[in-house]
Amino acid sequence: MKRQLIAELDRSQLETVILKGWIRRIRETKSTTFVVLQDCSGVIQVVADPVKVKSLGLRAESAVAIVGKPRIDARAPGGIEIDCDEIEVLNSAAEVLPFTSTSRLDDISPDIAINHRPLALRTDRGGAIFRVEAALAEEFRAALRRRRFTEIFTSKIVASATEGGTNLFAIKYFDRAAFLAQSPQFYKEHAVAGMERVFETGHVYRAEPHASSRHLCEYLSLDLEMGFIDGLEDIINLERETLTEMFAAIRERFASALAQFDTYLPSLEAAPVWTFDECLDRLRTTHRRSDLIDDFDPMAERQLCEIAQKESGIAAVFVTEFPLSSRPFYTHPASDGVHAAGFDLLLRGLEVTTGGQRLHRRSDLEAALQTRGIEASAFESHLKMFDFGMPPHGGLAIGLERLTCQVLGLKNVREATLYPRDLSRLEP
Amino acid sequence: MKRQLIAELDRSQLETVILKGWIRRIRETKSTTFVVLQDCSGVIQVVADPVKVKSLGLRAESAVAIVGKPRIDARAPGGIEIDCDEIEVLNSAAEVLPFTSTSRLDDISPDIAINHRPLALRTDRGGAIFRVEAALAEEFRAALRRRRFTEIFTSKIVASATEGGTNLFAIKYFDRAAFLAQSPQFYKEHAVAGMERVFETGHVYRAEPHASSRHLCEYLSLDLEMGFIDGLEDIINLERETLTEMFAAIRERFASALAQFDTYLPSLEAAPVWTFDECLDRLRTTHRRSDLIDDFDPMAERQLCEIAQKESGIAAVFVTEFPLSSRPFYTHPASDGVHAAGFDLLLRGLEVTTGGQRLHRRSDLEAALQTRGIEASAFESHLKMFDFGMPPHGGLAIGLERLTCQVLGLKNVREATLYPRDLSRLEP
Repeated sequence: MKRQLIAELDRSQLETVILKGWIRRIRETKSTTFVVLQDCSGVIQVVADPVKVKSLGLRAESAVAIVGKPRIDARAPGGIEIDCDEIEVLNSAAEVLPFTSTSRLDDISPDIAINHRPLALRTDRGGAIFRVEAALAEEFRAALRRRRFTEIFTSKIVASATEGGTNLFAIKYFDRAAFLAQSPQFYKEHAVAGMERVFETGHVYRAEPHASSRHLCEYLSLDLEMGFIDGLEDIINLERETLTEMFAAIRERFASALAQFDTYLPSLEAAPVWTFDECLDRLRTTHRRSDLIDDFDPMAERQLCEIAQKESGIAAVFVTEFPLSSRPFYTHPASDGVHAAGFDLLLRGLEVTTGGQRLHRRSDLEAALQTRGIEASAFESHLKMFDFGMPPHGGLAIGLERLTCQVLGLKNVREATLYPRDLSRLEP
Repeated sequence: MKRQLIAELDRSQLETVILKGWIRRIRETKSTTFVVLQDCSGVIQVVADPVKVKSLGLRAESAVAIVGKPRIDARAPGGIEIDCDEIEVLNSAAEVLPFTSTSRLDDISPDIAINHRPLALRTDRGGAIFRVEAALAEEFRAALRRRRFTEIFTSKIVASATEGGTNLFAIKYFDRAAFLAQSPQFYKEHAVAGMERVFETGHVYRAEPHASSRHLCEYLSLDLEMGFIDGLEDIINLERETLTEMFAAIRERFASALAQFDTYLPSLEAAPVWTFDECLDRLRTTHRRSDLIDDFDPMAERQLCEIAQKESGIAAVFVTEFPLSSRPFYTHPASDGVHAAGFDLLLRGLEVTTGGQRLHRRSDLEAALQTRGIEASAFESHLKMFDFGMPPHGGLAIGLERLTCQVLGLKNVREATLYPRDLSRLEP
């Protein structure tokens, strides 16, 4: 007899089966014991002999194998129940557990959930968060493959800083110094010079010395880069389309699981594009704020999304024309030469994307480095790649954990990170 | 007018279009200049005015935009040609290049290709290698999703060694010591205790102090882990099915591009399973070898695949029952208690997978650590996860670069790595 998955039980052939999984709940009545069993496909109720259950010392969260006969029962969740013949305990759970698969995960602190990750993953909420996160990555890749993008895998060990030189983790690389990559930026540009359209879904590293609900030292970056663009609009439009397709897929695939979250999966086709100055104007008018200079703070990001919601019906805004000096050296200038041809996407009050057009001529890159007082020779192995017909190009990076939070209405990126790394956490 | 991709030209509407891409080749005749243009979708021949081409100083590998009118021409590759109206050079390639997109990449050393990655990616061979590699990762994920596996993303910064403690890269993690993960082993086991079936496609790190054609310090690991198994056969059979499906998809999707390689994409349904001792017997009989003790060397891996080819028609073998002492502490013993319930898959002469059943009881893990003289307390944050009903489980890891090599008949893993990291290479 082969083990069957709960969701794949054949309702037309009610023969004895083996099921395996974890015990979610044990409910005893005078004559019967009900055991709710959970596997990777679903849950099912098993009707068992109270004496047998007692003699086994059966406990919630233990791993078990159950031999029994399915029976159609309209009252049962899923419409099918199992009459149990045998139960085997494959591995007992501890007697005292801080919470179980039927606990409300949103009442449990992220730290407790992380320290007991298997149990957190067995809750409806915990399982759904990480299944949705995986599906967001999958649908990101699928949307880009439909547009002829190729997936790349680039090194996370680099000889020098991509973005500027602060917040780097240092590695001892044999007898040399190296660093963990803050972004695949340079590598995806090189790949664009060869394949035109590329994406990567990999980890990036920032040694953020502060703890906040939005920062991680290691996060999953949904990165793309595209060649032969006409300008920044091509990148913004690609993100509109990609996120809209990703969100539609999540709505369809997780229809019932989404009900337990404060979900937000809008079409971004009509999300507004505001310049940085237009944003400052709105913040001045609506919130009397005049304290912002070259970037927003978390409160401003929330306020701007509220304003966008009122003006356009969508709690998201693409912000363009940040001051050029506040963006990395490889940023292409806007037509005025003072602002950046870059953008951030604020979604439901949080920055989830940074993107932009990049400089594609070697001479422009050398000048940009010089303006910032950086020796161009330090970047020679990168600059060389611009000698091979680098096309006009741009791209973006979406933080997957942040995106998952905004989509599901979570309050802390740690809720969407299996094993977060931050100033204080290195285990498990 | 919107830019069109070469492969998406509409043959029923032959109106003027904009194409963008790189110049592959310029061929001059007395009256005409032929320009072969390449973009991410394909190549096409453009018929241009020699005077105009000369005045622009057009060069191979430059990025250009071309306005022209498509014309059906049965003689042209692809059956369509462009009569050029205008050419704009978007970015010139350098005058002297070490090789171009029409060079034979297999005549160029991996080092030269790596140092000029954009050009290497524009060759037919270079482009196909990395597209096949991306597709192998994609089809691995797809095969597992069909079996209800969930993708996970786990930390690559760890507090201690998973596999034993040697060949680790050390990181300065704020004021603490940490290491780059050698494998997601512990994390995928924790995730199995929560979600039953998980996979990850991420980087892993080995500080291999030697240079060889098969070792990298950073490689992409196709990892899976499955709970509620009956034994090792479940894992071996899962790999048989998964690889067979992946290979079939590659054969179908890359039919024409594969012709340029010495391709090997067999069904593994009938690949033999031999114990380590049976392998040693065969090596003694066939090659008079008696020098191997607890593992194979590269020559033995080649010899075993040749023997498998002769015996079974497939140049692949699942090797089981290695000595338990040669495998990591978490390895489940075979029924004899002396050998390991683990396996390697040798494919076409190279180990591409290591897998096995793992210990699932905390007490067994503590005993295994003790046997090896390791303090169990050092692993407490890991061992704790076994208190929550950890099911019998196992899994495997496939090296993506090695797999790509074996499938395409490449000689060095560096040919399938965009930016390899080894003892001597940290840039680009």
